[in-house]
Amino acid sequence: MRRRAAVVGAGHTRFGALNESPRELLRAAVDQAYGSVDKGLTPLDIGEGFLGTLGFSGWQLGNASAVLAEEARITGAPVTRVENACASAGFALRSGILAIESGARDLILVAGVEKMTDAPSRRRRYWLGVSGDTEWERMAGLTFAGVYGLMASAHMREHGTPVEALAEVAVKNHANALKNPNAHLRKAISREEVLASPLVADPLRLFDCCPVSDGAAALLLAGEDVAHRFTDTPVLIAGAGAGSDALALQDRRSMTRLAATRRAADEAFQRAGVERSDVDFLEVHDCFTIAELLALEDLGFAAPGGAAALELSGATRLGGERPVNPDGGLKAKGHPIGATGASQAYEAFVQLRGSAGDRQVRGAETALAHNVGGSGASATVTLFSVG
Amino acid sequence: MRRRAAVVGAGHTRFGALNESPRELLRAAVDQAYGSVDKGLTPLDIGEGFLGTLGFSGWQLGNASAVLAEEARITGAPVTRVENACASAGFALRSGILAIESGARDLILVAGVEKMTDAPSRRRRYWLGVSGDTEWERMAGLTFAGVYGLMASAHMREHGTPVEALAEVAVKNHANALKNPNAHLRKAISREEVLASPLVADPLRLFDCCPVSDGAAALLLAGEDVAHRFTDTPVLIAGAGAGSDALALQDRRSMTRLAATRRAADEAFQRAGVERSDVDFLEVHDCFTIAELLALEDLGFAAPGGAAALELSGATRLGGERPVNPDGGLKAKGHPIGATGASQAYEAFVQLRGSAGDRQVRGAETALAHNVGGSGASATVTLFSVG
Repeated sequence: MRRRAAVVGAGHTRFGALNESPRELLRAAVDQAYGSVDKGLTPLDIGEGFLGTLGFSGWQLGNASAVLAEEARITGAPVTRVENACASAGFALRSGILAIESGARDLILVAGVEKMTDAPSRRRRYWLGVSGDTEWERMAGLTFAGVYGLMASAHMREHGTPVEALAEVAVKNHANALKNPNAHLRKAISREEVLASPLVADPLRLFDCCPVSDGAAALLLAGEDVAHRFTDTPVLIAGAGAGSDALALQDRRSMTRLAATRRAADEAFQRAGVERSDVDFLEVHDCFTIAELLALEDLGFAAPGGAAALELSGATRLGGERPVNPDGGLKAKGHPIGATGASQAYEAFVQLRGSAGDRQVRGAETALAHNVGGSGASATVTLFSVG
Repeated sequence: MRRRAAVVGAGHTRFGALNESPRELLRAAVDQAYGSVDKGLTPLDIGEGFLGTLGFSGWQLGNASAVLAEEARITGAPVTRVENACASAGFALRSGILAIESGARDLILVAGVEKMTDAPSRRRRYWLGVSGDTEWERMAGLTFAGVYGLMASAHMREHGTPVEALAEVAVKNHANALKNPNAHLRKAISREEVLASPLVADPLRLFDCCPVSDGAAALLLAGEDVAHRFTDTPVLIAGAGAGSDALALQDRRSMTRLAATRRAADEAFQRAGVERSDVDFLEVHDCFTIAELLALEDLGFAAPGGAAALELSGATRLGGERPVNPDGGLKAKGHPIGATGASQAYEAFVQLRGSAGDRQVRGAETALAHNVGGSGASATVTLFSVG
């Protein structure tokens, strides 16, 4: 029986166009995580740290891990920077889980941060392409919205997916973000507004795209055998999985399935020993509205082509059968690249402790978090359950 | 008793100013590692991968891990990019060890790569500073050689360290590199030539500095319980340690000690249960000649200020009492940033299997590898022993 990890504390800054530097964002998220530990802890208890960040805007291109160590007051302890594009914090969380499972450490700090809005707007566009393939996609002029636009077009052609289903994802996630004080876009939108918004990369419109955000999130992981030292209500990491896929779309077997997500999900469910039907809500990687449909299908919550009807049925809304992205998702909560995977785990933590306020998923006992790198070259899936 | 990791295969490209792309370098190192596995393996046996790279010259700024997956033909399996500046591969190796120790995987691929010589020379200088502190060092105009020049000056002031000891490090490592067909600088130099070479950052001269190199290295790690499936002569990872320190020199307690190295070494020796006196040779992080002196002192093989006499005595030469950097070190073998930590482990592997050719350390049974990120903000120490 392997040793499992549990979340014993978590912190989250506001997401948005913020004045704070990456250092300040990390400090705020970590301090909030420290403060959330019911029985208290000192930074010296932490054996190791993992930082997820793309390093967008170049604030510290090498050794950014040392900045996390400084702001968390754990300098001395090893800290590793992990970068798998938009799944950087998902993979940092994975590394933290492995360190707990190895028995080498009892308490681990995982954090994610990104500062995006201080890059000039032309550079933002350039940088956003860096997580796709350089040789075949970026050098051919394909933007990141363009990559997902191709996937959306293919999905529509194969499955007859209506644009209304894409719009519904945006409407739902904006509605959820209104209930999340940390969300970037706190503005209700209608399906008509989405469908009338400017075209960005056919068929994706402005309101199909997540915003460019700043923010940070932090998690404290303990071995399940020592978690009680820190809290009486830990959130267990029941199982974790990860996978990879070809970097360029053209090298993949399908443009409408993310093989990395499917592999990650199969591994996480197998390791956790739970069923899809046990999952009460999902945090999925909706960088574009189409990505939420792909996620539901690849994670096994809808048949291929079946996610559109699921979204249109209302089952994925707060109060529905199985809510998806109760925090507003990347789409409306915001997507500070390196922070997103930690932000999803933060949501699982507060929801499963019943402390999610207005957006609480009633009676939630099991949650799934799904983080995708770039256009699907990497993915993590993590299952959380009440301790 | 924790499960330990063993190296069952390793590969290494030539280091130098090469024509190959990062993809080609990774492919070559991985293919050589595959070919080195005595009993053979298929890429499908590999459960997970870790890639160390700084991403110098920007060839793939996000999701470079997917490129390793493609070139190693393991797409599907999770691959994580790890970046801790010049210790990127040391920390990638550490992550691989944790994954083996956790029991989650039986066989792991660890690789490191850097392509540096295709950046324009002004950009090279700019980029080399990125692993030091941005806010206080880089923005004040401090170069990377400048940071180590400050450390060398302080060491001379505190301990009376003679420039001849620095020069001896260069002379020795150049002599060793002559015996390493993969080395970048294969040219014998004299102490007089070092001392007459142009001043770069007082007291460091041109021949005190490692070159800017391209290259890759790859390692295959297995659980010690399954290593026999792949080879009858695995090299055991007896223990590993890591540490961090403040990013900026001004924030450290000492300018002549690297606290991250000391912490990493103490942890590695404690976990391995071996003594300093058991170590037959060392691979240490000599990005500048002063760094080899600091390493010997911080690793506990010389008292503070004592490394100069040790180097001048000849004890660290091939054939000496305890050789240091038999492969030529970063100084003469070359330092493709993200590859270096894997290259050091490659040297431990071939030496402990008795297959290091002209540079073989006779009878070597225990080796230490030491990898430093930037100017010491992060460090790993790994102890290897015959299986």
